[in-house]
Amino acid sequence: MKAEIIAVGTELLLGQIVNTNAQYLSQGLANLGIDVYYQTVVGDNAARLQQAIETARSRADLLIFTGGLGPTQDDLTKDALAELLGRKLVMHEPSMAKIEKLFSSRGMHMVESNRRQALMVEGAEALDNETGLAVGNALTADDKHYLLLPGPPREMKPMFDGPASDWLRRISGRTNALYSRILRFSGIGESSLEAALLPLIEGQSDPTIAPYAKEGEVAIRLSTKGVNEAEAYARIDGMVKQIEALVGQYLYAKEDIPIEQAVVNQLRNSAQTVATAESCTGGLLAELLTSVVGSSGAFGGGVITYTNAMKHTLLGIPLGQLEGEGAPGAISESTAALMAERIMETAGADFGVSITGVAGPSSSEGKPVGLVYVAIAAKGLDTEVHELQLSGNRGVIRLRAVKSALFRLWKRMSGI
Amino acid sequence: MKAEIIAVGTELLLGQIVNTNAQYLSQGLANLGIDVYYQTVVGDNAARLQQAIETARSRADLLIFTGGLGPTQDDLTKDALAELLGRKLVMHEPSMAKIEKLFSSRGMHMVESNRRQALMVEGAEALDNETGLAVGNALTADDKHYLLLPGPPREMKPMFDGPASDWLRRISGRTNALYSRILRFSGIGESSLEAALLPLIEGQSDPTIAPYAKEGEVAIRLSTKGVNEAEAYARIDGMVKQIEALVGQYLYAKEDIPIEQAVVNQLRNSAQTVATAESCTGGLLAELLTSVVGSSGAFGGGVITYTNAMKHTLLGIPLGQLEGEGAPGAISESTAALMAERIMETAGADFGVSITGVAGPSSSEGKPVGLVYVAIAAKGLDTEVHELQLSGNRGVIRLRAVKSALFRLWKRMSGI
Repeated sequence: MKAEIIAVGTELLLGQIVNTNAQYLSQGLANLGIDVYYQTVVGDNAARLQQAIETARSRADLLIFTGGLGPTQDDLTKDALAELLGRKLVMHEPSMAKIEKLFSSRGMHMVESNRRQALMVEGAEALDNETGLAVGNALTADDKHYLLLPGPPREMKPMFDGPASDWLRRISGRTNALYSRILRFSGIGESSLEAALLPLIEGQSDPTIAPYAKEGEVAIRLSTKGVNEAEAYARIDGMVKQIEALVGQYLYAKEDIPIEQAVVNQLRNSAQTVATAESCTGGLLAELLTSVVGSSGAFGGGVITYTNAMKHTLLGIPLGQLEGEGAPGAISESTAALMAERIMETAGADFGVSITGVAGPSSSEGKPVGLVYVAIAAKGLDTEVHELQLSGNRGVIRLRAVKSALFRLWKRMSGI
Repeated sequence: MKAEIIAVGTELLLGQIVNTNAQYLSQGLANLGIDVYYQTVVGDNAARLQQAIETARSRADLLIFTGGLGPTQDDLTKDALAELLGRKLVMHEPSMAKIEKLFSSRGMHMVESNRRQALMVEGAEALDNETGLAVGNALTADDKHYLLLPGPPREMKPMFDGPASDWLRRISGRTNALYSRILRFSGIGESSLEAALLPLIEGQSDPTIAPYAKEGEVAIRLSTKGVNEAEAYARIDGMVKQIEALVGQYLYAKEDIPIEQAVVNQLRNSAQTVATAESCTGGLLAELLTSVVGSSGAFGGGVITYTNAMKHTLLGIPLGQLEGEGAPGAISESTAALMAERIMETAGADFGVSITGVAGPSSSEGKPVGLVYVAIAAKGLDTEVHELQLSGNRGVIRLRAVKSALFRLWKRMSGI
């Protein structure tokens, strides 16, 4: 099955946003064993959109659209496709009910255009939108398949991963084709991981080994095709053992979960808690921990002490430690250790994690951008402090510092 | 002049990289007053690449390629285009000399395939590659224009900004550039904003008005073409006034900045500071504020009090307020107010912002998912508390709560 991805939106043609949807869908389709031959971007213009559809169906079996399902007059994807297929748009009542309920629960007046989000191309299957109002459409007509997804990534991703992938497996007949397992690593870069695994990758045939980077961490996908699930996973498990022998010290999960989820799982399993004290990461560490459902049992809270005054007020760190001639300063091993210990004590937690450093763009205390100290305090034990030299822009340094802190905490808890 | 951008590379179709080149080129072409009607991605396959070229020249005057100029057998862009045009590939001697010099200066053996990077489509103009070896090609044939740029962004960008833009100005003969301004709104949805502006949008000709959603907020793009910058912006400013009359209460910036940037700007301009106390948003409010470069002058710090015990320990909120028969509870108007006031006092800040609520997936204190209280405390003034009913999944509710808190703070500071 040959697929073409069509992103609809003038903002893409003007370069106001980058087409990350195409990448996400391409990866997802590769996982489903569906080949993508073209990606196309077209603006919010009915004639050019229809021309793009004509071109795509002359060279692909499956057309996947993102964007143009919203409420405004610019949102034309369903209208354009329906007209080309000679079909009507029909109201999807459950979606309409959801929209009406939302507006009435908020006591807001629903403008008429919102009804457009509940329309479907006649004959299409509705795909539920978990995180938004526009209903997805999945349709087969004249041997061509059409999948209409919303444009905003936070709506598109759950719809693609959920109901759209189920539909794609059904139409591509690939229900049992591919077995795979994800291994997740932290504390090692993608290229170093690939280099360490090179003997396995070069000799690989089955299962295949595909490393890829994932939001500040690295993952490996092991895949094998087979008719028999038990046999497929036996082959995968054999490969996992070989990989563990080479890079086991960086492997934190044999499933597709981020390090913050692994940390929360570990804390909950051992009925322990952590508290956080952040400077340069400004709350990102706490934010990632609390993004995990059920984190309240493992994380009580923390502080963001962005200035020296706040390090003194909220954590009781002496100003003489932070400022003045010969003081270690805010960005130092000893301040990191104090921050972790004080928040652990204040919160009555089993672990305290702190991050202090220079996220950039300019240096601070005469210390270079990318210098970050991470401390892990543990009740009744010595505090560990790690000095990191991170590269990247401000956002990247903050993310890497937080991921590294989470991995150090996970290692300390796991005794690895 | 209508342009189409064609990115060549199987790694794009597999989702291994994201097509940032298309965004960069689209922005650059808009600045040159050249309309982009389509972006296409095709793999390293001669037949499909030629098919993409055929399609593109049936609907565009200018084809801009990125990728496929390198040394390997996979790099096919010049070969495919030359064959379609019935032209030969010829050696560009200055580029060849540059390649030979590089290899000999490094004492490296030059493999034969490197010569391919100095080849040109017969009749093309050479575009110097400041940061790499593959020479760019610019060519006009049968009234169609072809611009061949390298794929790696660090080679593509300087070539586009330099010699390619000179060539584009020459062939387009247009100084008729596109002028645009972005207006950013908060506290209103995309569809409500469009409904409010419908009289303007329906009557619009020049400037055009295009609303779009952007990470929890809404933006409008006003665009006009003109030979004269002053005249173009005078037209845009006139439209801005009409828009302000309709929805001015939601407009927080006349430039493309997120609400957290507007808040930090406002605080710095008035030499004031804010401190934060978060429950259900777990640090996201502080994280967004500190993502702004220069936020340390405006934000000293904050606390994440995820549990009642931490609300008591870090903010001194009486446990009787939070727990027990008849207590308002953690998710209440009065607790939100206390959190904002206490963190403002503790931090010695001018403003205190708090968020407490139910991000889900399950209800808490018997209160429904999506119920969130935001409080804005201001030194010497009454504390404002807003009750929000938010929809979406856990991540969406958290983001909306934080964006709403930032907007309420911005409004309070602005006296709107």
